[in-house]
Amino acid sequence: MRKRPKQVAQAPGNGGNLPGELLLLQQIRSRTAHSSSGLRLRIGDDCALLRTRPGEELAVTTDLSIAGRHFRLDWHAPESVGHRTLARGLSDLAAMGARPLAAFLSLGLPRDLTRAKGRQPAWIHRFFDGFLALAETHKTPLAGGDLAESPVAVADIVLVGAVPRGRALLRSGARPGHLLYVTGSLGAAAAGLRKLGELAAAAKNPSKPPSIPRKLLPLLSGHLYPQPRVSQGLWLQRRRLATAALDLSDGLSTDLAHLCAESGVATEVNAASLPVHPAATLAEAIHGGEDYELLFTASPRTRLPRTIAGVPITLIGRIVRTRRSQAPITLITSVGAQQLEPHGWEHFSQDATLKASR
Amino acid sequence: MRKRPKQVAQAPGNGGNLPGELLLLQQIRSRTAHSSSGLRLRIGDDCALLRTRPGEELAVTTDLSIAGRHFRLDWHAPESVGHRTLARGLSDLAAMGARPLAAFLSLGLPRDLTRAKGRQPAWIHRFFDGFLALAETHKTPLAGGDLAESPVAVADIVLVGAVPRGRALLRSGARPGHLLYVTGSLGAAAAGLRKLGELAAAAKNPSKPPSIPRKLLPLLSGHLYPQPRVSQGLWLQRRRLATAALDLSDGLSTDLAHLCAESGVATEVNAASLPVHPAATLAEAIHGGEDYELLFTASPRTRLPRTIAGVPITLIGRIVRTRRSQAPITLITSVGAQQLEPHGWEHFSQDATLKASR
Repeated sequence: MRKRPKQVAQAPGNGGNLPGELLLLQQIRSRTAHSSSGLRLRIGDDCALLRTRPGEELAVTTDLSIAGRHFRLDWHAPESVGHRTLARGLSDLAAMGARPLAAFLSLGLPRDLTRAKGRQPAWIHRFFDGFLALAETHKTPLAGGDLAESPVAVADIVLVGAVPRGRALLRSGARPGHLLYVTGSLGAAAAGLRKLGELAAAAKNPSKPPSIPRKLLPLLSGHLYPQPRVSQGLWLQRRRLATAALDLSDGLSTDLAHLCAESGVATEVNAASLPVHPAATLAEAIHGGEDYELLFTASPRTRLPRTIAGVPITLIGRIVRTRRSQAPITLITSVGAQQLEPHGWEHFSQDATLKASR
Repeated sequence: MRKRPKQVAQAPGNGGNLPGELLLLQQIRSRTAHSSSGLRLRIGDDCALLRTRPGEELAVTTDLSIAGRHFRLDWHAPESVGHRTLARGLSDLAAMGARPLAAFLSLGLPRDLTRAKGRQPAWIHRFFDGFLALAETHKTPLAGGDLAESPVAVADIVLVGAVPRGRALLRSGARPGHLLYVTGSLGAAAAGLRKLGELAAAAKNPSKPPSIPRKLLPLLSGHLYPQPRVSQGLWLQRRRLATAALDLSDGLSTDLAHLCAESGVATEVNAASLPVHPAATLAEAIHGGEDYELLFTASPRTRLPRTIAGVPITLIGRIVRTRRSQAPITLITSVGAQQLEPHGWEHFSQDATLKASR
């Protein structure tokens, strides 16, 4: 009897008719074999097979990215698009305190993005450079997906994670009196996007992503290469320290409103306490999306360290009871308290620059 | 202490800025609440949480469908696109013998497909009519997904299923001497697509899917509303009767070559035994894709019934040893034996009619 493989990876679908598609798939597979840690990749079955440990349940998340909306081919280098695609999914797992089991990627690409240009490798290979580097950092094998020709570049990322039963960090557990914390800094992604737009506007060839001067890299990395807080989410879940959590993908004012709605509470945020990124404005820190930091609440009796796995933790406010006819978020500044409209982000998203990256 | 929900559904992402998106999401959610059986849907967390039974492992599959390639807005009614999207994923689970746990759907749509036209409901709602009807048939809750505006309609379907550990039907278990079976009939989808193309060419309004005369519905249903063989796959898995299996998505000549390659075997197929659909040609039965029937092998000592869960089972050939410099598939006809090229489908897929639906 042949030994059955412990884990089987899904055969990438054949919907594409892309030029040299089989060769392309083989190249991608040979690269993903290196990025898998403990997952036995195997070509050619209808589904990937994954195992959880006893007592674990599954966390599953999907995020669709579309050229011209979530990224721009003329602004973002392919490595950044690959990184950001995976980061969106990993950040959702981080928010639940789940450990990543596997990623699945469905990629629809115009034909020319699969072809090498002179000595330059094809866009798709540079996309995987960024994707697989982040996958390796978080020990997340690419276990399957689909590849097809598409008139517009689209990438749908699926992350499957595992978390002990009943221990996932939910949005619904915040109670009045709990304290509100955030990891890292806020506004870096919005500030980086603003700077990227300026560089693109000044670029000689407007159809290609602008080259980033080395000294600007730290400023732009929050936007181009955001770091999902997987270790921090796991740390909080394993110690049962957070009462609620989510990741900041749409911006603090939007996501905090979600947390309040799901928990049935309101919140007071101290503007002076916000860890605003040095390059960002206060508005970017409050409304800017895609920072992928974790926002979480904890009992006031809980002692939290200053950093979790190397990332600073900042107390930014507290949870209070909902009050009739008031917005769920009150921002306390040096000149008094103001209500933050829960849908302030919708207004903000009409800004052309940000809209392009949403 | 609040009771934690047993299963949590992922909040659809907010990447869209589609008009009335929040209302749209609420409408979809209220509909999916009905289609879920035992899954407690809950709005607003970063991931969906799913549980398997002890001793089960997970089967995960993704399939990307793109307008103009996998379906045509001017040929296929939205209900058919929704049905076919889910059928592709369910068929992959069927091929592994897995029971469906949940579906996730990422949908990118042009703005006008989300808007009602006069008294006609919006395309997206009719899409969900087809999608959710099939989901209900297979007790597969829609547990999450993403929704975004896109210049071209794209749908990425993710299916998560469960199967007892080590019991999934793989492509790799066929051995010389095993017999080769197929469920249902072959060529119905290709024949239906051909007929649909004829109807579309003769239609008065070429931008809208042609109306299907009632008497033609049986002929076209194999293409428009294929039935994934979930019950049949489960039946085979639970009784340990199949040694290898896959689903016919790309056509018998392609998929059987995959099975041979994964198992390291060759095969002889009797042309006269093939259950060719009454409307289909032999070529459509051999090369046409999207029938979503199961192709499986079993030991010659295994007794199989004539039907499984109401679907006929047909013995179509046997597995043999590979022979040097021969194609893996030999088709035996009344005039002798011929080698079927394993990549015959690539040639076939250049046919414009079929290409549109791939």
